[in-house]
Amino acid sequence: MQGALDIPQELESVGRLIAESLPEVGSVFAGQLASDLPPVDQMCRHIERYRGKMLRPTLVIVCGAAADPRVGERLTEGDFAALASDAHVTCGAVCEMVHMATLVHDDVLDEAEIRRRGQTLNMLKGNETSVILGDYLIASAYELCSSLDSPVPSRIVGNASAVMCTGELLQLHHRNNHSLDEATYLEILERKTAALIGAACELGAMCTLGFAHQGHPHTRALRSFGRRLGVAFQIQDDVLDLLGTEETVGKSVGKDLEKGKLTHPLIHHLARADANQALRSLELIGAAAGGDRDGLGELLGGVRGTGSVEATGELAASYVAQAKNALTPLPDSPARAMLELMADAVVSRSH
Amino acid sequence: MQGALDIPQELESVGRLIAESLPEVGSVFAGQLASDLPPVDQMCRHIERYRGKMLRPTLVIVCGAAADPRVGERLTEGDFAALASDAHVTCGAVCEMVHMATLVHDDVLDEAEIRRRGQTLNMLKGNETSVILGDYLIASAYELCSSLDSPVPSRIVGNASAVMCTGELLQLHHRNNHSLDEATYLEILERKTAALIGAACELGAMCTLGFAHQGHPHTRALRSFGRRLGVAFQIQDDVLDLLGTEETVGKSVGKDLEKGKLTHPLIHHLARADANQALRSLELIGAAAGGDRDGLGELLGGVRGTGSVEATGELAASYVAQAKNALTPLPDSPARAMLELMADAVVSRSH
Repeated sequence: MQGALDIPQELESVGRLIAESLPEVGSVFAGQLASDLPPVDQMCRHIERYRGKMLRPTLVIVCGAAADPRVGERLTEGDFAALASDAHVTCGAVCEMVHMATLVHDDVLDEAEIRRRGQTLNMLKGNETSVILGDYLIASAYELCSSLDSPVPSRIVGNASAVMCTGELLQLHHRNNHSLDEATYLEILERKTAALIGAACELGAMCTLGFAHQGHPHTRALRSFGRRLGVAFQIQDDVLDLLGTEETVGKSVGKDLEKGKLTHPLIHHLARADANQALRSLELIGAAAGGDRDGLGELLGGVRGTGSVEATGELAASYVAQAKNALTPLPDSPARAMLELMADAVVSRSH
Repeated sequence: MQGALDIPQELESVGRLIAESLPEVGSVFAGQLASDLPPVDQMCRHIERYRGKMLRPTLVIVCGAAADPRVGERLTEGDFAALASDAHVTCGAVCEMVHMATLVHDDVLDEAEIRRRGQTLNMLKGNETSVILGDYLIASAYELCSSLDSPVPSRIVGNASAVMCTGELLQLHHRNNHSLDEATYLEILERKTAALIGAACELGAMCTLGFAHQGHPHTRALRSFGRRLGVAFQIQDDVLDLLGTEETVGKSVGKDLEKGKLTHPLIHHLARADANQALRSLELIGAAAGGDRDGLGELLGGVRGTGSVEATGELAASYVAQAKNALTPLPDSPARAMLELMADAVVSRSH
């Protein structure tokens, strides 16, 4: 995440906090997955390259800093780094591991070939190994999470993971449903993406405030921030899948259409297009689902014609605004400013 | 499990304890999986029929009773049922849910069509839905486990699940390895099956003795019992897959050969057969992996000819004996006697 951000001078302390914490997250992550069985170990090293933006661990760290009631004093002391405790690092690694498990299983489901500019595990080792390796990541995430003294983080992570799965199941249920409406689309996003990002923010706050403080206004504000941000993030992900190229995005694109998943630009377009155009677009969507990408240019032309790309951009921007608005209960601080910066970056990113 | 057992008069109190606890396990199980989304809810009801022998919850309950230091007194009072606390019921449901998640994913990997005499979920709803539904079961199991006051059960379940996955990965790594040796075969079994059964027994003891008592001799004895029993159980499962019929076993059989998994009777046979016969058997194993089952009768004839079915039976029996032997530190009680009975039943079962 950080690499994509242009961090202004006054947020340098938070930038340093992130830069110092993420390698710790990485080493807890790798340590938990290490196996005494060489073939297992080798696969875990392969998927470590999936670790990209580290959005979730970054949110755990920065939300932890933003929730610290002493955040003003600390900053002037310049020892911001002390804000990232072992618990923050552990929770960051847990969230990243759960996320990566979903990537591994998604790649199986999507029959994806490319992830982070490398071959996916399912292409290298087959679907069966990928399914089980995803399970190993989930189990390892839970084992790591339960190493904390309190069962509360395990409850949060277990619940978020279960909600994520219901979002994926809802999405599969609506595959090839060409009358999918915006409300159901957003419900899918809230479940499959926003729940875990919200949990990462909540965990960050709770690692700072103590696990007994689930109802603390700062904890609730940050969870809310994360959930809104998560929806915006997934809307943008869906836009990149529709409009991006493999080269800029760094993973297989066009998969949503191929798998019969209607995303926001198309939902908006089909609702706005006149009857003839809607019929033609449905024809092209059907062809794309059958693997025929020849009509994609025409389809995207139609989508642009109904102003649907802008409308989707506005929807994502409104979630970013809601996310930033949710931060109101928090005191002004560089950590809070960094969260606002991250929220803006989510919709401007091209990968 | 209980249905398969002929419970003698003197163990009736334990039989009643099991009979009264399992429906509670079932309702906690169903309550945890219930979803506000109708399509998710419907699938969860479908897989509830996978709940068969309930071996793991039964072990949680009976091990809990066997670990109770007051087990003698209690018995004479006849209020054995009080031994199964909410924690025992919760841990029973958790273990069954983790187990069921592996069944759902196994059916995807094995391309199985039949489970508990009904169509598998992957046949009804496709592989993608099955992968995600398995993930939902795992996440729900962890969420349920973390509802307990202590993080210790989550640690045990998280660790057992991770070890299970390494066992599956090791097995996949050795697919079509026709020189797989007995030691590696047993390592796979200890990981993929025995770890969770051992955890169920350990959790049962700890629900009785308190979660701070991981090192209690009764806890260790029962975990050890479960691990040995788990190996015996899987050896028998593998025998049924090789020698059983779909009608008696109630699920797809012959899958191990088809998926290139060498199990004990074949490992023993290939080590004992003379060079010519081994070559012929390898040819037939290769054909079976290619879907050609015509040579199966000849192959099984060869396996019987080297005494390999008996040898496998003896191996399973030796694990049962080790399991029963592990119970030595426990006081004599009907619960302990029931565990011994269950251990014997594992190798005599035909489904």
